[in-house]
Amino acid sequence: MTMPLLDDDQLSPEAAAVFADIRETRKSDFVNNFWRALAHDPVSLKRTWESIKQVMAPGALDPLTKELIYVAVSIANGCNYCINSHAAAARAKGMSDAQFMELMAVVGMASETNRLATGLQVPVDAAFLRQPPRSITED
Amino acid sequence: MTMPLLDDDQLSPEAAAVFADIRETRKSDFVNNFWRALAHDPVSLKRTWESIKQVMAPGALDPLTKELIYVAVSIANGCNYCINSHAAAARAKGMSDAQFMELMAVVGMASETNRLATGLQVPVDAAFLRQPPRSITED
Amino acid sequence: MTMPLLDDDQLSPEAAAVFADIRETRKSDFVNNFWRALAHDPVSLKRTWESIKQVMAPGALDPLTKELIYVAVSIANGCNYCINSHAAAARAKGMSDAQFMELMAVVGMASETNRLATGLQVPVDAAFLRQPPRSITED
Amino acid sequence: MTMPLLDDDQLSPEAAAVFADIRETRKSDFVNNFWRALAHDPVSLKRTWESIKQVMAPGALDPLTKELIYVAVSIANGCNYCINSHAAAARAKGMSDAQFMELMAVVGMASETNRLATGLQVPVDAAFLRQPPRSITED
Amino acid sequence: MTMPLLDDDQLSPEAAAVFADIRETRKSDFVNNFWRALAHDPVSLKRTWESIKQVMAPGALDPLTKELIYVAVSIANGCNYCINSHAAAARAKGMSDAQFMELMAVVGMASETNRLATGLQVPVDAAFLRQPPRSITED
Amino acid sequence: MTMPLLDDDQLSPEAAAVFADIRETRKSDFVNNFWRALAHDPVSLKRTWESIKQVMAPGALDPLTKELIYVAVSIANGCNYCINSHAAAARAKGMSDAQFMELMAVVGMASETNRLATGLQVPVDAAFLRQPPRSITED
Repeated sequence: MTMPLLDDDQLSPEAAAVFADIRETRKSDFVNNFWRALAHDPVSLKRTWESIKQVMAPGALDPLTKELIYVAVSIANGCNYCINSHAAAARAKGMSDAQFMELMAVVGMASETNRLATGLQVPVDAAFLRQPPRSITED
Repeated sequence: MTMPLLDDDQLSPEAAAVFADIRETRKSDFVNNFWRALAHDPVSLKRTWESIKQVMAPGALDPLTKELIYVAVSIANGCNYCINSHAAAARAKGMSDAQFMELMAVVGMASETNRLATGLQVPVDAAFLRQPPRSITED
Repeated sequence: MTMPLLDDDQLSPEAAAVFADIRETRKSDFVNNFWRALAHDPVSLKRTWESIKQVMAPGALDPLTKELIYVAVSIANGCNYCINSHAAAARAKGMSDAQFMELMAVVGMASETNRLATGLQVPVDAAFLRQPPRSITED
Repeated sequence: MTMPLLDDDQLSPEAAAVFADIRETRKSDFVNNFWRALAHDPVSLKRTWESIKQVMAPGALDPLTKELIYVAVSIANGCNYCINSHAAAARAKGMSDAQFMELMAVVGMASETNRLATGLQVPVDAAFLRQPPRSITED
Repeated sequence: MTMPLLDDDQLSPEAAAVFADIRETRKSDFVNNFWRALAHDPVSLKRTWESIKQVMAPGALDPLTKELIYVAVSIANGCNYCINSHAAAARAKGMSDAQFMELMAVVGMASETNRLATGLQVPVDAAFLRQPPRSITED
Repeated sequence: MTMPLLDDDQLSPEAAAVFADIRETRKSDFVNNFWRALAHDPVSLKRTWESIKQVMAPGALDPLTKELIYVAVSIANGCNYCINSHAAAARAKGMSDAQFMELMAVVGMASETNRLATGLQVPVDAAFLRQPPRSITED
């Protein structure tokens, strides 16, 4: 660890208020280590928690789909903590083992073809673009 | 490009057979550049295409969810070709602009917290694990 | 592009308000392409802009140091847009060419030793830790 | 580990000379594990140590700023060893906890916008470039 | 772990058949943890094992060279499991410690210059291209 | 570009000396763009060129194998410039198209299994380690 984890009795009032909202929102007394490390910076803690709540709320995509995307990105970014915590969150939202294994297959296949396309330096087909490319030299 | 793109009349018989299956499967004459670069290695072309068909078929996850995961991973892996081609594929499978923008927000938020957890070197909470960790020193 | 860039007359009222604040804050009429793409999701646009303003404001670190860190991370993450935009921002905040070249040398050296330490799988020295590691199996 | 760590009495004369210089330069008897793994290749050990000394010396940027950049890059590259060792080095050069937490916030925010810009495939604004792009097709 | 490792007596018949082929191919009773985790998805297990066998077989490149490339990519992708397992595989195929240390030096140097070229946004020299770039705007 | 490319008549004497050595070593008048960007920092230019010469010289691995590793790492790190320049260097050292396509297949397969192992959080088998892990808590 690069910063010690904070126990409840070590929190600043601002951090304690965020912890209270985490507990209220999740209907659980458990606050995981990520927030206990981030609590050293109450402003960052509050901003990150508020953003997570907003981004992960139901919208054009359902919460489980968002959680699956979160896990997939965490794998590609190589964040072990996040893989474990968001896989747990996805299971809590209903992800089955079969769905997780299928997610893994997609992540693996995408990573393989990502490297193939990059290594072969394949130019983007015009058919895939949303609008004609704007030259970087025009204003 | 590190390898020239192959036109239809430059394909080996093995590669031509894969192209025929791509066209048959997609009900379209269009074969995108990725396959035209990979066609230099017909064995790899065939294996990759067969794998993609298997992995992206409906299963425990629906095809659109899989395509969204594919796009998210391509962003995290920094593959511009794949971002464009799979965003197009997702749109073809029904992804709305609002869904794409929400996907983007999740990918961005995940990448932010991924770096926070890694930088703070947060240890994984025992509550998140599927089974007690097997020591790497025991057989 | 996966989403078209929006011109000023294509903005929703919420997005237009954010653009007005960008112009007011920066004392400049210029709004760069990043915000014109993100404007398709006014909620995400507002959250991202508010966060950037908060995070990049003077604090325990001065604004130029923060901008240098931003550029370094963008290089490691391979984001060409961000490398260009934040190198420009750093120059506007006083970064000299010599400072940029020194930044480059540090980024390059860090990336080399990062891979050496990862490839050699070097265990972390106890002397570097902030606190004894908390076992992932204890509660 | 992929290579055993070498104790002082296992070093080649060339490696021992580098270790002596590390101790002399740092005014400390402690030599961390990174060098003990790299010592299997004395040529690489010497080159890497000499480069580090040169790159991290005071110059257009002060040593603490360089160390902060080193930590930020190590996070983005996902090197746990380097995050711990260079966070310790930064603390030894005067980094406060508040500065470290602010560094974290910048790294997190940069990683979020990096992915947004990449996912949206935002074209670089002409205003950000140092010189007109040189076509890759002209000589 | 996000999925428990499966023992031999927990395998589905399809997974057991793959394990039998792994043992037969490698002339060893040992089946490493990677396959025990992947065995939760017998279709993915079979596809991955068949692909590995095909890709890593002797061809235009010899097996040791392929294993060295595998290790190098695993370091760059930050996969600790794969670094350890494929370094062991490379040693089994004859890799000496001196060769491994030289591999490390190349991986480190490549990573340094990769970041320099990306940070400096160096345009590709026309002399390096295999064919004139095909504009992304032409059909 | 974040720094303009320097023409021969814009070089400092120190940079000009390095360019002369590049030309002498390669027996060619062509100096590629990477060095023309790095020439803004003659100290970094000299150190990088000397290191490249040392690392890429024949040793325990032959020069072509090293070049293949360089290309593979550049793909995994997503450096387009380096992919193109080192693929050209590998071709100049005898790499055939078939070898390049096989390299691509290994890079793709490694990237797929890297993500699978990371996502499944597979623990390292004791059999793969070079020595018993040294606890991070002991001195």
